[in-house]
Amino acid sequence: MSLTSSSSLQVEWITAFTIAAGTAAIAMINLHIQKDNPKIVHAFDMEDLGDKAVYCHCWRSKKFPFCDSSHTKHHKQTGDNVRPLIVKKKET
Amino acid sequence: MSLTSSSSLQVEWITAFTIAAGTAAIAMINLHIQKDNPKIVHAFDMEDLGDKAVYCHCWRSKKFPFCDSSHTKHHKQTGDNVRPLIVKKKET
Repeated sequence: MSLTSSSSLQVEWITAFTIAAGTAAIAMINLHIQKDNPKIVHAFDMEDLGDKAVYCHCWRSKKFPFCDSSHTKHHKQTGDNVRPLIVKKKET
Repeated sequence: MSLTSSSSLQVEWITAFTIAAGTAAIAMINLHIQKDNPKIVHAFDMEDLGDKAVYCHCWRSKKFPFCDSSHTKHHKQTGDNVRPLIVKKKET
């Protein structure tokens, strides 16, 4: 492989990875949930939550807005450290 | 530009965008928050929340885990539909 074609190959891969890194930086968080809904806001009344509610924070749960441990698979795929949000009654 | 060089250019861009799309599909959600923390879990006692708590769901808030409306900028950048999670006392 001549110098010019290997350096142009290098440029191609640098371009590709720059795009990839840039894309990762401005990528969507929600890839599958209610994509036809322009704004996904959830509101809960504390009185309705029972002793504890575990909310999904990784946007991969099949039971969204509740956690179904999909963050484990997301962590394996990406190394991400997102885990659920827990709202609970004080232990008495 | 000869046929071969334009088609190879095309291949390069297809490769770049495939990588970019693939990257977006497996991109991290949390880009900046507590990156030295292997698992970001938050737990709150309802009794401590006052009348309402608005939790960040886009992982861009400077007041994480609470919402600071950073989802608006994230929406403009990506078109994403993620918005906050609200836990509140029933209106009396």
